[in-house]
Amino acid sequence: MPVVVQKYGGSSVANVERIRQVADRVAHTRASGRDVVVVVSAMGDTTDELLALARQVSANPSGRELDMLLTAGERIAMALLALALNQRGVEAVSFTGSQSGIITSDSHTNARIVEVRPFRVEDELQRGKVVIVAGYQGVSYKREVTTLGRGGSDTTAVALAAALGAEACEIYSDVAGVFTSDPRVVPAARRLDEISYEEMQEMAGAGARVLNAQAVEFAKERGIVIYARASSGSDEETVVRRFPPKAPGRVVGVASETGLVLLTLGPNAAPLAPVLELLDSRGAGAKQLRYDAALGVSLVLSLENLHDYGALRAELSARFPAVALHEGLGAVSAIGAGINARFATVRECLRLLAADGILVQGLATSRFRVSLLLEQAAIDGAARLLHRELVERSF
Amino acid sequence: MPVVVQKYGGSSVANVERIRQVADRVAHTRASGRDVVVVVSAMGDTTDELLALARQVSANPSGRELDMLLTAGERIAMALLALALNQRGVEAVSFTGSQSGIITSDSHTNARIVEVRPFRVEDELQRGKVVIVAGYQGVSYKREVTTLGRGGSDTTAVALAAALGAEACEIYSDVAGVFTSDPRVVPAARRLDEISYEEMQEMAGAGARVLNAQAVEFAKERGIVIYARASSGSDEETVVRRFPPKAPGRVVGVASETGLVLLTLGPNAAPLAPVLELLDSRGAGAKQLRYDAALGVSLVLSLENLHDYGALRAELSARFPAVALHEGLGAVSAIGAGINARFATVRECLRLLAADGILVQGLATSRFRVSLLLEQAAIDGAARLLHRELVERSF
Repeated sequence: MPVVVQKYGGSSVANVERIRQVADRVAHTRASGRDVVVVVSAMGDTTDELLALARQVSANPSGRELDMLLTAGERIAMALLALALNQRGVEAVSFTGSQSGIITSDSHTNARIVEVRPFRVEDELQRGKVVIVAGYQGVSYKREVTTLGRGGSDTTAVALAAALGAEACEIYSDVAGVFTSDPRVVPAARRLDEISYEEMQEMAGAGARVLNAQAVEFAKERGIVIYARASSGSDEETVVRRFPPKAPGRVVGVASETGLVLLTLGPNAAPLAPVLELLDSRGAGAKQLRYDAALGVSLVLSLENLHDYGALRAELSARFPAVALHEGLGAVSAIGAGINARFATVRECLRLLAADGILVQGLATSRFRVSLLLEQAAIDGAARLLHRELVERSF
Repeated sequence: MPVVVQKYGGSSVANVERIRQVADRVAHTRASGRDVVVVVSAMGDTTDELLALARQVSANPSGRELDMLLTAGERIAMALLALALNQRGVEAVSFTGSQSGIITSDSHTNARIVEVRPFRVEDELQRGKVVIVAGYQGVSYKREVTTLGRGGSDTTAVALAAALGAEACEIYSDVAGVFTSDPRVVPAARRLDEISYEEMQEMAGAGARVLNAQAVEFAKERGIVIYARASSGSDEETVVRRFPPKAPGRVVGVASETGLVLLTLGPNAAPLAPVLELLDSRGAGAKQLRYDAALGVSLVLSLENLHDYGALRAELSARFPAVALHEGLGAVSAIGAGINARFATVRECLRLLAADGILVQGLATSRFRVSLLLEQAAIDGAARLLHRELVERSF
């Protein structure tokens, strides 16, 4: 029987009423003659609430115990959904990430899936049951419980779809697919009918929340087609799959993110390696590391996956006084396959922002992306501006 | 009948004796019951010789006439190969890029394939003939003859394979596949049995000559498996296809390139946009554009696809005296999926080069690559050093 993997995010299971709606949809899919694996996140803001509790009892909570704590969130959601399905007469069984065979690296709070051994999931599907799997969590080779970082339930769903040979992976959230920009910031943003893996990876990497970047990478590697839909049940969707760009050089979307810090270090100021070693030891993976002998070093830190920026800043200042930190930054990015074959898009972005009086603090390009580093307060306006001039014109 | 596309590079058809060997191989493949499309480059150094002739008759040859001139090279090779096959009793017909339906953008000397309409190729295959196609060339929507830039015959082959639904695309050259580094520079380099599209793209983008980066991108988009082999007939090969990395973070190869120029512009020195406009107008696509308000602008130009660097330099100096150009540079790059999840590889590269007294002029990272900008004279030694310490250890 064909297998379908459905993933429901935190807002889709935020309360009992919504869990009942998800159960209805799952029961409906099961009745259509397919095996169903459901991946669930924790209810609503549970994860953030648990994190806040941890901070109240410990100034510097250990990663291992944080992971033990946070994984309780999906455990609650999955058990409730199994109960709701049983209530409807649908046989269902829930499994933790560990029980589902989600094997990860051993970096607590930000692990990566390295292998999936879904033997118990397969056994229960064969018995005709709906299988509910806790997203966002797994178990390391050292047998410790781990979590996958923000958006990790998407990765659980795609990795399971690949391991099970599923025909599709459906990602349900509170928005109906992938938009050309965040509709809350850019009202003119439109839903994309389809987007390539590469463009979706860049959108996610540049701050779009709808799909996790590692999940898209997994899907690309394994050729899994992703359907992004709203759990509210509209028929609209975005299909993420492999296809050649329709018009190379076209800007498909504008994504933005905040909470960035620009670290710079003038030429000959201090050796780079010990700075990088300190960042590594604090788990501060950086975007866009760049060094030029004539100009110096620059790199962009994201506060999102950094658990204690204050401590990092203190240690940087103490050990490397030449390091300058520019806080309160964000980035707005124009994304599209082939947009950097020439400088036309970069120049247009610089022209538009200058005409609007927006100061550009930094700029970086990759094959699929032009990213502009701006003061946080300027991000939303810049996103609307670039979306209007670069995306809406081709509507 | 299954179709196979075989591409033979310039050295594989460098003289009559080699063309006869290619004809033998093609005849053998045809006799095995497959339809064969052969893509050929110009013989040996024909293209460079034609370019030198053009420079002797014109100080500033137009792109259109250059393309008319250069496309004569493949025309000679394809006709000779067709004759050699006919001589063996194998029916063969040759087509130019235009006749084969290779539709490109209109940028002369560096066009991109946008569509393939291989109707005449298909008709002749149905008639049982071997079809020989001129690589590296096409025709724009404006009906002008174009060329695809260095390595463009690979792209012709992959694009044709995709359009014809071929089961495979075989790329024959004078080396038996893809190596962990250039064996002429790094004697310890080994052939890779297989490599992912992404890693191959990064290797090609970082200077490895064996496959063209755009060709690999095409293959990735269309799911075409590439077999890279030596035309001499050894059984060794490298398979380029989609697969998950065996060990994320492992360095799979070291690639290098020379002929780079670092352009820098201190903070507040001059506006960036007019500099980029000048570069665009001279067709000088740059790698790694980076700007930080505190440090300034840096970008790396490659002389390879720049037809008149002297004129560009003169105009840059005249109009933007603050622009500094650091010539005579090269880059050595470590490549592998996931090597930049942490800074470990960057730090190891910096440590190894420093211990060897090699001065690093610049550094840039991407998801799959750590690139170090060095004086050209240091490139080969640095490639051997990084290969020994980062690649050979896992042999």
